[in-house]
Amino acid sequence: MKQRIGIGIIGFGTVGCGVVKILIDQAELIRRRVGIPLEIVGIADQDITSDRGIALDRGILTTDVKRLIDNPQTDIVVELIGGLEPAKQFIVAALTKGKPLVTANKALLAVHGEEIYATAQQYGVDIGFEASVGGGMPIIRTLREGLAGEKVHTIYGIINGTANYILTKMNEEEVPFQEVVAEAQRAGFAEADPSTDIEGLDSAHKLAILINLAFGTPVNLGDVYTEGVTSITSLDLEAAREFGYTIKLLGIAKWSCGDARLPQGQIEARVHPTMIPNHSPLAQVNGVFNAIHLVGESVGDIMVYGRGAGSLPTGSAVVGDLIDIARNLVTKACVRVPHCSFQPDAREMLRLKPMAELCCAYYLRFTVQDTPGILSQLAGILGDHDISIASVLQRGRERGGKVPVVMITHEATEHNIQAAIQKIEGNLSERTMIIRIESQ
Amino acid sequence: MKQRIGIGIIGFGTVGCGVVKILIDQAELIRRRVGIPLEIVGIADQDITSDRGIALDRGILTTDVKRLIDNPQTDIVVELIGGLEPAKQFIVAALTKGKPLVTANKALLAVHGEEIYATAQQYGVDIGFEASVGGGMPIIRTLREGLAGEKVHTIYGIINGTANYILTKMNEEEVPFQEVVAEAQRAGFAEADPSTDIEGLDSAHKLAILINLAFGTPVNLGDVYTEGVTSITSLDLEAAREFGYTIKLLGIAKWSCGDARLPQGQIEARVHPTMIPNHSPLAQVNGVFNAIHLVGESVGDIMVYGRGAGSLPTGSAVVGDLIDIARNLVTKACVRVPHCSFQPDAREMLRLKPMAELCCAYYLRFTVQDTPGILSQLAGILGDHDISIASVLQRGRERGGKVPVVMITHEATEHNIQAAIQKIEGNLSERTMIIRIESQ
Repeated sequence: MKQRIGIGIIGFGTVGCGVVKILIDQAELIRRRVGIPLEIVGIADQDITSDRGIALDRGILTTDVKRLIDNPQTDIVVELIGGLEPAKQFIVAALTKGKPLVTANKALLAVHGEEIYATAQQYGVDIGFEASVGGGMPIIRTLREGLAGEKVHTIYGIINGTANYILTKMNEEEVPFQEVVAEAQRAGFAEADPSTDIEGLDSAHKLAILINLAFGTPVNLGDVYTEGVTSITSLDLEAAREFGYTIKLLGIAKWSCGDARLPQGQIEARVHPTMIPNHSPLAQVNGVFNAIHLVGESVGDIMVYGRGAGSLPTGSAVVGDLIDIARNLVTKACVRVPHCSFQPDAREMLRLKPMAELCCAYYLRFTVQDTPGILSQLAGILGDHDISIASVLQRGRERGGKVPVVMITHEATEHNIQAAIQKIEGNLSERTMIIRIESQ
Repeated sequence: MKQRIGIGIIGFGTVGCGVVKILIDQAELIRRRVGIPLEIVGIADQDITSDRGIALDRGILTTDVKRLIDNPQTDIVVELIGGLEPAKQFIVAALTKGKPLVTANKALLAVHGEEIYATAQQYGVDIGFEASVGGGMPIIRTLREGLAGEKVHTIYGIINGTANYILTKMNEEEVPFQEVVAEAQRAGFAEADPSTDIEGLDSAHKLAILINLAFGTPVNLGDVYTEGVTSITSLDLEAAREFGYTIKLLGIAKWSCGDARLPQGQIEARVHPTMIPNHSPLAQVNGVFNAIHLVGESVGDIMVYGRGAGSLPTGSAVVGDLIDIARNLVTKACVRVPHCSFQPDAREMLRLKPMAELCCAYYLRFTVQDTPGILSQLAGILGDHDISIASVLQRGRERGGKVPVVMITHEATEHNIQAAIQKIEGNLSERTMIIRIESQ
């Protein structure tokens, strides 16, 4: 039997430091749980001189990733550099050497997941990627294991802490978007270039991973409708409140049981600002917190909630995966759980429903010249497109000036909404704000 | 390699029906995940004639539990009859036959867990008990696996759906306790004899299981302070609201890192109505829903939320465990994860801090004769016991009648509170209501 499990870490940045710190600080706790110690045998980074404030034998630091992977003492490889390359080549090198892997790299898994899972399968090694979605909150393990007997048909996720922080601040303090972004950057909650977070791409990466685990189908990231939070204004947040809703950037996925709206074999997958009722559990999730609300056929509603990012929370998920794989190495139970929750030969290619066929209620905010008959014109065009109005809010009129007119529609198709808006916008000088509503 | 995993189920009641239904309805999904089918080979119950509305081969029904366990086709035994005996003897019979077990029996695990885990260890078989706490929500797996590298030092749990339903209804509709209980019984949310739920014992059972997994120590159930919700009145819920709090029945456990209040090697474990701030995540958990808020040294705050009871949600957790164990049988990785999260030889006996030493803020509701100087008398006695008052609420006075006086104290010890109340109550005709406050 093995006397210890050797860990080789590629990337000694924010998450890498968190992993190293936990492996050192909780070494005794981990040994008490696994039975044998997890020992860091190597850390590879381009920068091996900066002081990270962690006491360790500097001899284990290296700039040579290949040597770290090839080291016979490295039992598990941890990839924490992020991005597509060279992360992918390091991961493939580890897997083809028969070394199990733990990664937090959502972009890579969303884009090249199929190839990576197939390589891991071919070489009979495990991949842990709990840290790729929702930091320390237990969502990957819950989908791959706890809910393995469950038809999870709906996923609603607040899976980007930066976007959620920005919307929370805008909502609580009525500060405009650009100001909140600048503040989030100063506070360390947003990157210098926050576009991946605020434009929804990061959420789309994570959603693609969740769909693969829950529905057993890969999705082509380019086909997932992705809209960020950059157009949301305080006006929209305020109007939402008036109607009893909160606006959140959600990753949404649905798997049909074959009803008329979502035929058998089809799925929905989309990322966009979403109005949800104030009483829904996700509406209470504020600041940098992430949460995922799942609905399963048997289990009903489940929510997991936690810190979606950060050195130690993400590090904790990595260490949980290391322990999982260590237990597999000790019991020689590699690939005990299929990488994508479904057996490789039992996955299917489900069709992504085109966005134009989406059917839901909508929030529409028009900016109109305040002239007599304008409301009747708007309502007329909407009516012509089979869109019926549930509520209207018009206020703060300035004689002859521009005023916002806010409407909540009954259920309509995206195709009809877009066609109506296009027709209406011919007469307006400003873009119309469209926010989709999920009643949950 | 095995061609299928045979499941033998003891108990064909509410949860048993849920398990059978899921195994039948999701057979294809389960096969796609495990690689081979899970097949029900036997169901034992005293009643094998009633129609449960599930189409199955009646030949697999039996009243003979021993035959079901001994059947060589039974690979995994599921115990769903609840209670201490004969459940315990069935479980021990299965384990000593080398058959892995799945159970939802929290009372049995809380009382005889040590013996059962030791037997399972001795015979090298797995026990799954995800269904014992929080129905379908993924808490056991999260503690045993996802957070295995985590020092979880605090657990706050709404772990009894009946009590939470009653408090929610009382709070929302201002209906008195007895009426809500009767309504909950009619709606099927409370048992004919609801005492285990409303007096806190069921929560204490579940808390003991969580402590074992999170802290690695058994607890003697008799030593866990347990107080139910039977004394809570609408007056208390209303006063809590005025102060910005919600009252929830919580199971609370803390594991010290060695601060003054909770010395190294000590834990807190208690079940009682608790005032928590309205903004805390658990305050939003209403009705029959359960939720557990964990705080870990690295991961920070995590919450899991879901339906804590019911045929299908609890059944889903049982099926998740069956798949877990099936995967272990397929890869011959039995006891891959230690039953209690810690290796049997690495567990320790932590000391339960005596309740008298608890230190927290308190809500006190006195019922006093409205005479001049009464507030000063109360405050004087509290002051004599080192208890300082943070807020007072006195309203609705009737000349010469009895009035409630509500106080929130700063942090005080339970010993001092009890001594002061005893002194004060010498002069009062009604009991004083004491509710502990957790600021989270």
